[in-house]
Amino acid sequence: MALNEIAHIVKNGERFFLASHKDPDGDAIGSLLALGGTLLLSGKQVVLFNEGPIPDHLSSLAGIERVVDAVDIEMGFDAGLILDCGNLERVGAVSCRLSKTRPLINIDHHENNSRFGDINLVDAQSSSVGEIIYRLIKLANLPLDLTIAENLFVALQTDTGSFKYDNTTSEAFSIAGELVDWGVNPWKISRKVMDEWTLKRLHILESALKTIEVHSAGRVGFITIPQDTLSKADTDNLNCERFVDYPRCISGVEIAVLIREIKKDYYRFSLRSNDWVNVAELASLFGGGGHPRAAAFSKEGSLDSVKQEFLSKAKGFLQGR
Amino acid sequence: MALNEIAHIVKNGERFFLASHKDPDGDAIGSLLALGGTLLLSGKQVVLFNEGPIPDHLSSLAGIERVVDAVDIEMGFDAGLILDCGNLERVGAVSCRLSKTRPLINIDHHENNSRFGDINLVDAQSSSVGEIIYRLIKLANLPLDLTIAENLFVALQTDTGSFKYDNTTSEAFSIAGELVDWGVNPWKISRKVMDEWTLKRLHILESALKTIEVHSAGRVGFITIPQDTLSKADTDNLNCERFVDYPRCISGVEIAVLIREIKKDYYRFSLRSNDWVNVAELASLFGGGGHPRAAAFSKEGSLDSVKQEFLSKAKGFLQGR
Repeated sequence: MALNEIAHIVKNGERFFLASHKDPDGDAIGSLLALGGTLLLSGKQVVLFNEGPIPDHLSSLAGIERVVDAVDIEMGFDAGLILDCGNLERVGAVSCRLSKTRPLINIDHHENNSRFGDINLVDAQSSSVGEIIYRLIKLANLPLDLTIAENLFVALQTDTGSFKYDNTTSEAFSIAGELVDWGVNPWKISRKVMDEWTLKRLHILESALKTIEVHSAGRVGFITIPQDTLSKADTDNLNCERFVDYPRCISGVEIAVLIREIKKDYYRFSLRSNDWVNVAELASLFGGGGHPRAAAFSKEGSLDSVKQEFLSKAKGFLQGR
Repeated sequence: MALNEIAHIVKNGERFFLASHKDPDGDAIGSLLALGGTLLLSGKQVVLFNEGPIPDHLSSLAGIERVVDAVDIEMGFDAGLILDCGNLERVGAVSCRLSKTRPLINIDHHENNSRFGDINLVDAQSSSVGEIIYRLIKLANLPLDLTIAENLFVALQTDTGSFKYDNTTSEAFSIAGELVDWGVNPWKISRKVMDEWTLKRLHILESALKTIEVHSAGRVGFITIPQDTLSKADTDNLNCERFVDYPRCISGVEIAVLIREIKKDYYRFSLRSNDWVNVAELASLFGGGGHPRAAAFSKEGSLDSVKQEFLSKAKGFLQGR
């Protein structure tokens, strides 16, 4: 079993390369810092890599200063652990320089994971990679402390939308309870990673709320970050991806979409579904991917034409219900 | 110990009067339905009373049709169980007709509870009354089913802001995990009770966001439901109380306030604090009350004068930090 094998490797190795996906979210950074933290506390050497950019709401997590975006990959590692990446390219440009980092260990929870590792621990039933890392820590009897517990909590909380989404397993709850026993203060973490508002972010939300539209007999909801407001980098920094939850929570909506203009006539669509549509499959029609309930793609064209094309493809997924 | 005594009474009695506070929230209704449900499943007779009004987001919970807002209190009950009420008046007008309903059992988690019961189980450390009801069910070995589990989940989730607020105990998490094992689907419940948006509610939010102001060197944040938008009853129905979380989550804010006009020159202030201010004490200066982190009061005057008076009292609570 992959988990046992990985536990053996991290117990017995000395030098590890750890990385998670570029454009990181709370699970990518929380899991990276938690696994890095427990290995450091065990006296191991680790390099924690993330291509970035690290969004504002994750930039003050404990240990974040250890995360590098450049690395001398030739230095010998006993293993490379790649976290929360559906495919190896998700770690960024460094992916093509990892051929000597062996074994390459792939720890992920994306259903469509390409199984790029020498060892693949892919559990699509897990709420988050943080949940898998917690299991690894327990199995390998690695140490926990408050900082590690906080970073695991960040991973679990952000990937479950604070224990709301349908990936919220019983195990996610019981782990969260144990992390609170380690001293984690849910409100302190939540304010930082879920809900810290700046007046600027509130202003963007106010503008975005004006754009909400529902289509397809109320089953598709769009919210658009107004084109003149901000670049995608800014909205990433400001954690605006979560605005997709507003159309998602309109009664009757099955597919919710956040649309951001990346450059002129080039749009990023972030998709969420509520009950039955597999948005990873829908996104794959546009060259994107993700989870059944959360996926994304980018597409060239005018905003109107891209929306129309999306609605016509979405139609096929909404039929028969 | 009160919990043992109550367990004994509910196991051995046959007819119970259950009530929770008027203007109910998710804990008031979820706990009422859960305790009512487990007693019914045990073959007992129950009257479930709530003066109402039941807000929209709670109006489709399983068993809600059993909740009455009028009752023949003279019919003999083996006990009256009053849930989530800091004082007996919170149940509404029926409170003055409960003198023959004995023993009167007070189950609550408000610190300033007036201990009005013959038996008082007041645990301010509990996240919610739902958490206490779960403990009672376990101790008394009362039955659970999916419906009861869902209603307990509603109580826990709503009173903790979906496991974010600082009342989120380790026990709240572990109970939530067990409820998921009973078949509760967190996303199904969350969409209903936490986040169901209508276009109308989104429109009110958009208008309210325009009113956000920060005062007292950024430590007090106000959000106001525009006076021409809606009556308090409408905003209650639409669960707009939760909009207080927007100013609350502005970086630096300690006291957040949602202001609603109830009638001309008469305002309802809903208060939240983040770290150290006891807003129950602050609200008590205006004749209100609540929890240290969540309280409310109503006040006559022009909007400007009421805000100024509030800010001047709040100042004393903010000093020394």
